[in-house]
Amino acid sequence: MTWEKQNKTKDVHIVWQNTKVTKEDRNQLNGHKSFILWFTGLSGAGKSTLAVEIERELFRRDIQCFLLDADNIRHGLNKDLRFSAEDRAENIRRIGEVSKLFVGAGIIPIVASISPYHADRTMVRSLVNEGDFIEIYVKCPIEECERRDPKGLYKKTRDGEIQNFTGINSPYEVPVNPEITVETNKLSIRDATITILQYLQDNDYIPNKGLVDIHGHLDCD
Amino acid sequence: MTWEKQNKTKDVHIVWQNTKVTKEDRNQLNGHKSFILWFTGLSGAGKSTLAVEIERELFRRDIQCFLLDADNIRHGLNKDLRFSAEDRAENIRRIGEVSKLFVGAGIIPIVASISPYHADRTMVRSLVNEGDFIEIYVKCPIEECERRDPKGLYKKTRDGEIQNFTGINSPYEVPVNPEITVETNKLSIRDATITILQYLQDNDYIPNKGLVDIHGHLDCD
Repeated sequence: MTWEKQNKTKDVHIVWQNTKVTKEDRNQLNGHKSFILWFTGLSGAGKSTLAVEIERELFRRDIQCFLLDADNIRHGLNKDLRFSAEDRAENIRRIGEVSKLFVGAGIIPIVASISPYHADRTMVRSLVNEGDFIEIYVKCPIEECERRDPKGLYKKTRDGEIQNFTGINSPYEVPVNPEITVETNKLSIRDATITILQYLQDNDYIPNKGLVDIHGHLDCD
Repeated sequence: MTWEKQNKTKDVHIVWQNTKVTKEDRNQLNGHKSFILWFTGLSGAGKSTLAVEIERELFRRDIQCFLLDADNIRHGLNKDLRFSAEDRAENIRRIGEVSKLFVGAGIIPIVASISPYHADRTMVRSLVNEGDFIEIYVKCPIEECERRDPKGLYKKTRDGEIQNFTGINSPYEVPVNPEITVETNKLSIRDATITILQYLQDNDYIPNKGLVDIHGHLDCD
């Protein structure tokens, strides 16, 4: 193979040329599939908390995964974006595209993002193969979210310091048919974590380690 | 642990709270470090060709890596960007931020991007720890790149169809002190690939498999 040959081939078969390692190769090396785990819900519902636990529990099982927390990404990739409707859509679009790259790399991206609009979540779902987007609705009454108010954002909104806060003066569109729903005003962190792991195991997304493993010690105990 | 406790802790120790799996945990699981491999050079110099080969050779060694080809990313994450100076900088910034996420996930991002400006490459270097950015200058005289012209872009530029084409009517700033230089008008693809693998091995970036492995069969033979 020479530089010329390589490059001439590339012109004709650009997709074939651009990668010689497939997602399937990576899934085989890692011993598991790659897909998007997308946590959506109100601020304070428990998305980040659960995403952190799931990342740790998957990693304990030697599963390649990575937490993409929307708040953190706003300090890096999305630091140029604010909270207008347009910027919120762009925020989700970029996180979706990055998630798609991770899936291609054989890694399970774990996304925690309010992602209030159905259309944006559907757009991300469309980026990957059918079955590779798992929407987890972190459900919690807004009264309970406001009582928790972990970041003090509900108070700031009530005090008029924040505009366009989801659930107060900006809509949250409830997922129509999410793969998983966890009600965090009814379940402990441990039980919500188990619910998600059980779904992934029962639906062959992760290797089946048996109920004993799932119901045994969790690091969030 | 309860939802309230979790969330109250989060407010005080946000970094500690946001991830319970570190880069070091991942590097230990994978058996290798994670760092950025950044190929820079003129169009037609052989960046993508080499990046494809390096991805495959690393993967053959069970190393977690992923090719981020700038052309491909312009179809997804960066599809809103064009080729103005501002958009070129934003293009590199986003690829740099995504590369940083991959490094955090324990994966070696392999970036193939003309990335003509020193300032942009230096900015990406500053995103990660010292030593975690390996700049590979894919060096080739522009006459040879134009002779290869794998995408027909030099011809289009000479015909006036493309403005701001690097090397012709837009500058390429030669890397000042790249970690690796490969001269693709002097080396075969095989020898350029070996040069890079040898550097990574000699500098403990990847496990030392010995010269026999590196000088043995390569898939690009």
